[in-house]
Amino acid sequence: MKLVHVSRPVCSPRLATRHFSTTARRRIIKPITDLPDRTKPSFLERPDATLLSLQWPSPPRNILITKKKRTPGITDSLIEYTSHLSSTYPGINIILEPESASEIHEIVPFPVYTYEPAPPNGAPAHLSDKTDLVCTLGGDGTILRASSLFSHATAVPPVLSFAMGTIGFLGEWKFREYKRAFREVYMSGASDAYAKFDAPESNTRPPAPTSPDDPLDKPLSYADIRGKAMGSNRTARILLRNRLKVGVFGPDGTRINSSVDQDTYALNEIVVHRGASPHLKIVDVFVGGRFLTEGVADGMIISSPTGSTAYSLSSGGSIVHPLVSSLLLTPICPRSLSFRPLVLPANTPITLRLGEKNRGREVEVSIDGRSITGGMGVGMEVRVLGEHVKSDAGEWVGGVPSIVRGTDGIGMELKEQDHWVGGLNALLKYNYPFGDQDTSDGGGRT
Amino acid sequence: MKLVHVSRPVCSPRLATRHFSTTARRRIIKPITDLPDRTKPSFLERPDATLLSLQWPSPPRNILITKKKRTPGITDSLIEYTSHLSSTYPGINIILEPESASEIHEIVPFPVYTYEPAPPNGAPAHLSDKTDLVCTLGGDGTILRASSLFSHATAVPPVLSFAMGTIGFLGEWKFREYKRAFREVYMSGASDAYAKFDAPESNTRPPAPTSPDDPLDKPLSYADIRGKAMGSNRTARILLRNRLKVGVFGPDGTRINSSVDQDTYALNEIVVHRGASPHLKIVDVFVGGRFLTEGVADGMIISSPTGSTAYSLSSGGSIVHPLVSSLLLTPICPRSLSFRPLVLPANTPITLRLGEKNRGREVEVSIDGRSITGGMGVGMEVRVLGEHVKSDAGEWVGGVPSIVRGTDGIGMELKEQDHWVGGLNALLKYNYPFGDQDTSDGGGRT
Amino acid sequence: MKLVHVSRPVCSPRLATRHFSTTARRRIIKPITDLPDRTKPSFLERPDATLLSLQWPSPPRNILITKKKRTPGITDSLIEYTSHLSSTYPGINIILEPESASEIHEIVPFPVYTYEPAPPNGAPAHLSDKTDLVCTLGGDGTILRASSLFSHATAVPPVLSFAMGTIGFLGEWKFREYKRAFREVYMSGASDAYAKFDAPESNTRPPAPTSPDDPLDKPLSYADIRGKAMGSNRTARILLRNRLKVGVFGPDGTRINSSVDQDTYALNEIVVHRGASPHLKIVDVFVGGRFLTEGVADGMIISSPTGSTAYSLSSGGSIVHPLVSSLLLTPICPRSLSFRPLVLPANTPITLRLGEKNRGREVEVSIDGRSITGGMGVGMEVRVLGEHVKSDAGEWVGGVPSIVRGTDGIGMELKEQDHWVGGLNALLKYNYPFGDQDTSDGGGRT
Amino acid sequence: MKLVHVSRPVCSPRLATRHFSTTARRRIIKPITDLPDRTKPSFLERPDATLLSLQWPSPPRNILITKKKRTPGITDSLIEYTSHLSSTYPGINIILEPESASEIHEIVPFPVYTYEPAPPNGAPAHLSDKTDLVCTLGGDGTILRASSLFSHATAVPPVLSFAMGTIGFLGEWKFREYKRAFREVYMSGASDAYAKFDAPESNTRPPAPTSPDDPLDKPLSYADIRGKAMGSNRTARILLRNRLKVGVFGPDGTRINSSVDQDTYALNEIVVHRGASPHLKIVDVFVGGRFLTEGVADGMIISSPTGSTAYSLSSGGSIVHPLVSSLLLTPICPRSLSFRPLVLPANTPITLRLGEKNRGREVEVSIDGRSITGGMGVGMEVRVLGEHVKSDAGEWVGGVPSIVRGTDGIGMELKEQDHWVGGLNALLKYNYPFGDQDTSDGGGRT
Ligand SMILES: NC(=O)C1=CN([C@@H]2O[C@H](COP(=O)(O)OP(=O)(O)OC[C@H]3O[C@@H](n4cnc5c(N)ncnc54)[C@H](O)[C@@H]3O)[C@@H](O)[C@H]2O)C=CC1
Ligand SMILES: NC(=O)C1=CN([C@@H]2O[C@H](COP(=O)(O)OP(=O)(O)OC[C@H]3O[C@@H](n4cnc5c(N)ncnc54)[C@H](O)[C@@H]3O)[C@@H](O)[C@H]2O)C=CC1
Ligand SMILES: NC(=O)C1=CN([C@@H]2O[C@H](COP(=O)(O)OP(=O)(O)OC[C@H]3O[C@@H](n4cnc5c(N)ncnc54)[C@H](O)[C@@H]3O)[C@@H](O)[C@H]2O)C=CC1
Ligand SMILES: NC(=O)C1=CN([C@@H]2O[C@H](COP(=O)(O)OP(=O)(O)OC[C@H]3O[C@@H](n4cnc5c(N)ncnc54)[C@H](O)[C@@H]3O)[C@@H](O)[C@H]2O)C=CC1
Repeated sequence: MKLVHVSRPVCSPRLATRHFSTTARRRIIKPITDLPDRTKPSFLERPDATLLSLQWPSPPRNILITKKKRTPGITDSLIEYTSHLSSTYPGINIILEPESASEIHEIVPFPVYTYEPAPPNGAPAHLSDKTDLVCTLGGDGTILRASSLFSHATAVPPVLSFAMGTIGFLGEWKFREYKRAFREVYMSGASDAYAKFDAPESNTRPPAPTSPDDPLDKPLSYADIRGKAMGSNRTARILLRNRLKVGVFGPDGTRINSSVDQDTYALNEIVVHRGASPHLKIVDVFVGGRFLTEGVADGMIISSPTGSTAYSLSSGGSIVHPLVSSLLLTPICPRSLSFRPLVLPANTPITLRLGEKNRGREVEVSIDGRSITGGMGVGMEVRVLGEHVKSDAGEWVGGVPSIVRGTDGIGMELKEQDHWVGGLNALLKYNYPFGDQDTSDGGGRT
Repeated sequence: MKLVHVSRPVCSPRLATRHFSTTARRRIIKPITDLPDRTKPSFLERPDATLLSLQWPSPPRNILITKKKRTPGITDSLIEYTSHLSSTYPGINIILEPESASEIHEIVPFPVYTYEPAPPNGAPAHLSDKTDLVCTLGGDGTILRASSLFSHATAVPPVLSFAMGTIGFLGEWKFREYKRAFREVYMSGASDAYAKFDAPESNTRPPAPTSPDDPLDKPLSYADIRGKAMGSNRTARILLRNRLKVGVFGPDGTRINSSVDQDTYALNEIVVHRGASPHLKIVDVFVGGRFLTEGVADGMIISSPTGSTAYSLSSGGSIVHPLVSSLLLTPICPRSLSFRPLVLPANTPITLRLGEKNRGREVEVSIDGRSITGGMGVGMEVRVLGEHVKSDAGEWVGGVPSIVRGTDGIGMELKEQDHWVGGLNALLKYNYPFGDQDTSDGGGRT
Repeated sequence: MKLVHVSRPVCSPRLATRHFSTTARRRIIKPITDLPDRTKPSFLERPDATLLSLQWPSPPRNILITKKKRTPGITDSLIEYTSHLSSTYPGINIILEPESASEIHEIVPFPVYTYEPAPPNGAPAHLSDKTDLVCTLGGDGTILRASSLFSHATAVPPVLSFAMGTIGFLGEWKFREYKRAFREVYMSGASDAYAKFDAPESNTRPPAPTSPDDPLDKPLSYADIRGKAMGSNRTARILLRNRLKVGVFGPDGTRINSSVDQDTYALNEIVVHRGASPHLKIVDVFVGGRFLTEGVADGMIISSPTGSTAYSLSSGGSIVHPLVSSLLLTPICPRSLSFRPLVLPANTPITLRLGEKNRGREVEVSIDGRSITGGMGVGMEVRVLGEHVKSDAGEWVGGVPSIVRGTDGIGMELKEQDHWVGGLNALLKYNYPFGDQDTSDGGGRT
Repeated sequence: MKLVHVSRPVCSPRLATRHFSTTARRRIIKPITDLPDRTKPSFLERPDATLLSLQWPSPPRNILITKKKRTPGITDSLIEYTSHLSSTYPGINIILEPESASEIHEIVPFPVYTYEPAPPNGAPAHLSDKTDLVCTLGGDGTILRASSLFSHATAVPPVLSFAMGTIGFLGEWKFREYKRAFREVYMSGASDAYAKFDAPESNTRPPAPTSPDDPLDKPLSYADIRGKAMGSNRTARILLRNRLKVGVFGPDGTRINSSVDQDTYALNEIVVHRGASPHLKIVDVFVGGRFLTEGVADGMIISSPTGSTAYSLSSGGSIVHPLVSSLLLTPICPRSLSFRPLVLPANTPITLRLGEKNRGREVEVSIDGRSITGGMGVGMEVRVLGEHVKSDAGEWVGGVPSIVRGTDGIGMELKEQDHWVGGLNALLKYNYPFGDQDTSDGGGRT
């Protein structure tokens, strides 16, 4: 049975045995390769607006859910959330990270899917072909980890993020809003269906329940879905976050960032740093192919606008709105006091090279807070370019499509800038209260 | 005689008398309203390039030249430069600032044109309808002053800037390069003409000399111009610098920045500052219509990317490449240490309001280093938006079209980023030598 | 009658008339010259401690009280406070600023003393010879104003500061603590008296009440004072805040900062600033008599450690503990990014000179937030040196003796660093709660 | 033979053999234990001055010389320098680091002394009991390494530093000045001797040459030394650089910084840093025993004023003059933008604790650019206090006595501040030329 092959690496032997118990057919961990192919949404421009509109051709089915690590109570929330999705929406398939899958597959009354762990410096296979929507339960770090699962994919599924404590900077929704938030995303673009919902007869025919035996590759139609409409032109709002395309090359010119010869996408930034060596590093910086300067510093950050509020900010960089198409070059503790943070057009290639003058080989290269392994040291080169998020045909592709709030907690339409200004207030402790400060969860950032 | 009316305000009585001397007809100062209408160039995109190409429909004729103040030797340079243009190029008309016009019109053997001084907070009338090209002799301050002459115009003529000492950040050319530089700009776009030049017969017919009696409104053709071709596809490169559209409103809602009900364009920035009051100011900041924070500070800067290397940099802002479509909000000496500089999309409206909590009325508002006068104080509001530089039809309009180097001093083609990286090196004393360091002129910045 | 002469400048005519009413003899405003001479305390070192101990030779009598301006309710607090002092402590004389004196002298049942307003750039005459103790009701600004009343005195009386809203950085006490706080200060050093208090017989003889007819120049003895002892070695703790000695000289070498040829003392800082001129200023900086650099900037701050948390902090300076004997040189928005804030030994003379290169004459010079008037401009020179607070004989003199908390609200002995660390937490919103956060007063800083 | 025991660890086998060659008795490496005990100078206050005066009781004999690593030509300079000392001054003994000793002992015609390498986190045994004077050939890093050889000694010998390329911040002398500089130091305090030199008869008796057979423990007298006097009151100037006393303790309370239970002295700083871990560290900061804040950052620096121009400056700290008695607490890339660098009194104890919230155990602790090894991680504690440099008896002890210039290159007396202001100019590229810019050595900083 093919399944055994898949589930073994991720389950403890004890759990693996149980899979064959006759009474718990659904308690198995299935491989994502069993799932129907992904449903790709489109992102439409809205008049006079900078945020995009999410439009599903048919309802999303394959939902990847990631959760924060080392957090008490988080597994209960995961079970609550997946159970709600599975019982409320027809044809929903739950994909979990291998660890989470092992943890809960025996407890929940529906099958869970998972994938094989990623190779070093790589991303899990097939995941980007099978995932319709990503939901994260946690903080910014959880979103970064989710995004790293698609670090070699050009088309990342939309990401819906729930904060489990204080709202982070990248997150948007409180966990207790999950029912409303998921419905808003799920129904986004189903305007025709809504019309039908409103007609009384539309409720007579119940949607065909999906069963494990059903062929999975027949997409659902919004016509089959019952439920309360969200309002005919209420669609989920998308902030398309540009990423960085990063190539890391060893002293001998071999690519380090990926075993397949491919760039890695970063959501926040790439960092070159002295790491455990107590000495300054000397980094040659090239902008647009031209030598700019020799940076003598702890290290160097190349950040996206999204990452401007992360490490780059701590290192003295400005806060850049995610819709400013740009790259940030921010030195970390530079010796030269006049080496100030730079903001460059997104399409400017930047190269960092670790020259011969450096002592020792120790150096840390990390993408979005995850270290790259292997072959670091003198002669190494990091090449970065901003990701294009608009195709030549004018379609919006790439980036991390992040679902942001369109209304406040009590149904008021929010303005375009609200999600960002609100986040800034939370980050910088500015004086504007954003939503209710959910201090009862007792959380801290992350 | 109409002329007298014009020249009087700008000349000392002694000079004015001389205008009527019969032997010095050309020594008069003429009003710019006598000039033919402006020749508007277009700015073409070049394949794989971010800088634009300058394309004249017919050779430029009306040349405005501004010079730095209080600088020894600068008048001699002005005379040398205008004399060269006038004697080398057919049909050239020299426009000078009123002060310069008074100073040299008796010395040079050609007529000079000038305009009436601008009203308070305004720009000189007619200037933007008559000027084909602006040349500045000086530093960044001279460029700013030139740009302020077009602070109410949507279409600024191309600007060619010569440094008189050390090269500033906005300037590009050394004065000793003026012949080559002007020719490059003058011929830009005349590709057909070039072909003809190369043919021996093209030189036989001399261009018709323009005389004061000639009707001025018949444009020249490149076919009429003799001279050495620059090479058939050598066009001048344009960096289109976005400006800010600024409205300043008094406590009672009346517009202060301009007597006509119009926004003022800023090249660098607009500054709201405590000025001579020794106390902190409290400025309410709105981004995209939403209240962001109450800034308690010396003041607040809203800057263009061009201005990012000016006051904003001294106040802790990042250096933003002029092609990153954005606005910078940089607080000056804020009490809140977490009020960090922000970079926002160019199309985000920003409003600064001086609230009731402020003591006293004193406040300084300045645009590009020039104070605005009248009605400042509590209740005042500054509204800013980035300028659109691409029309809906895809044409490049607006901005300050700055002519940057396409080749280095000895004819080598420069890369796209070179002019900016080079300027940065000069500004920050980075280690890349840009052109030869012309220290012999003994100049300092400005 | 001499008194009339004094009260006139500070009272409205209507109030002045009432002075002569026979029934309200005490409702008059008296000149401070009528007061007995000041009682000077000494400041003793405590074993293993950095804060000093306040020791009165005899109980303080002449109490100057200043209050914040433009603050609702503050006059009521002033009346409450002065009434308490006057009715509780024998022989107390209340000194008020002229404005406050006019405001309340008719309401309170005891005489109030005041002084003639200070000459331009000067301090009120006689005040430092007559004041035993200063109490401030307000915020940091009120403390600064109080300190400016002694800006030409070498020996400032101890300062007890009550916050009327949120606690400022220089303040220490909440207004509602005033009874306990004043008693602690009043009794400080009366250890012998305490012993007597504890003996039952000590209470039998009531202290002789002072009456207006009594000769004022006979000092009280702690033996005459009844009341609850504070504990035999409970003395008020003094933080001796070093000041700056500042001389400002006009282009022609004449002293500007004072009509008498004397330095002015600053508690926070002296600032040289471009003021209302929109252009950079060029300031030559000399350290220890040696030319350091030409600062091109908005201006320059020379600050005491006390001032390090004020303007200098907003301009990028470090936070310096008030007991680090030093001067700070902090540039305001300097063009040179490598001109970083400097911390120098307190005994290093620093000179700032406004050189010939500056355009225009406009410049703002201010001490502790008060502008200096007259003769500013090119050629001006500011000379600064730290104040010595320990005499050659090892006595503590000079500085602003600030009374800080020795115990928390509920009687727990505080550690040496507590007052400063607590203040820092309040200023920077660090995470340590200092006392209870008295948000009910609804105050803001100042 | 005892010697073999010493030289073995530091020589390659091939070199060790040669020691026994009969013809090269002087080519041996001797243990420092063979040397006479150290001659301790005193440091005298000069009237109206902040720099101290060096006073030898008898001429220094045991000279430790350290040199920069990996620098071409440096060994030649070492040989030149030691040969000069050995041939010019009677009774001079040359101490070298083990590596240098191996490298040159066969080449030079005099014996060299060395010591056993230091244990982990420790300093070499006996060195501080035997060394009269330290000379460094290199840059700041070489001075730091020399100082680390005395990191467990309370009395560091005076340090005379020669720059081999560009002058660093801690260094003072150019290598080509070595003859004059050494003589100035050597003769410092020998005022009586000078008098004698001037008398003609003083030159008649040649100084007794020291031979290896002589008892080494009889100190020389200045009377025995021939040579040109420096001028009767010309003494070397000492800048006494305060150090930090540092204790590092593991999670279980055991001391890590030293095997013997002793604090380590740091000249620049101690750094706690995330090292190779790509995640933020959470450091609890205690000031004067009181919890200040939880620093969430890359790490934390506690620096001396001397170190203020090193790592702390790159991290945003102010520049603090070495004579300001203080400690700096400078966070590295803190998340909280309001965590600004602090300057505290030198006698304030500071503790950093790595709390339970930190993930993983990885952490880097380094002192003056040298990593500490062993037991780092959660629970670790760093305790720091400034070193006292004035004993209760008023003597100057401790610190690193750094010999600074008293005259410029051509004999002009320098002012007190000159050495520091000059260094600052060099560091920050301010505009004051300090000595001649010796660019011909082609050096860079280090
Ligand atoms: N000194 C610093 O500020 C450092 C920051 N980082 C940042 O941490 C990120 C990795 O995050 P974790 O794995 O959770 O590591 P982590 O445990 O080091 O936490 C990073 C912190 O940054 C916040 N954060 C992450 N992305 C953000 C964003 N785009 N805007 C605002 N805040 C953001 C998180 O909420 C969290 O508080 C990296 O991408 C890097 O940006 C990493 C090392 C040092
Ligand atoms: N503290 C500061 O840094 C201040 C800066 N300014 C700047 O001065 C400008 C006005 O210039 P001036 O009339 O010449 O006054 P100015 O005499 O105050 O000189 C301004 C300096 O800024 C430089 N500068 C101007 N624009 C620049 C740019 N875009 N990039 C880099 N450097 C630039 C000039 O070369 C000159 O050195 C204002 O637009 C403002 O940006 C004005 C006041 C204070
Ligand atoms: N951009 C800035 O930060 C500016 C600061 N100032 C400061 O204001 C002071 C004058 O105060 P006000 O008359 O009340 O004027 P103000 O109304 O301008 O308020 C100054 C603010 O600084 C605070 N402050 C004053 N001294 C302080 C200290 N030593 N430590 C911490 N905070 C302190 C006050 O609480 C108040 O919030 C000046 O001495 C100067 O230090 C003055 C102008 C600009
Ligand atoms: N980002 C940064 O600025 C970093 C600085 N460092 C500093 O390096 C020092 C160790 O020096 P090396 O072993 O040579 O390592 P290194 O090769 O990392 O060079 C350190 C640089 O700092 C300079 N320096 C050292 N002490 C100085 C001082 N007191 N004032 C001014 N400049 C100074 C040196 O000249 C050299 O340019 C550490 O004590 C630490 O202060 C260490 C790591 C990072």
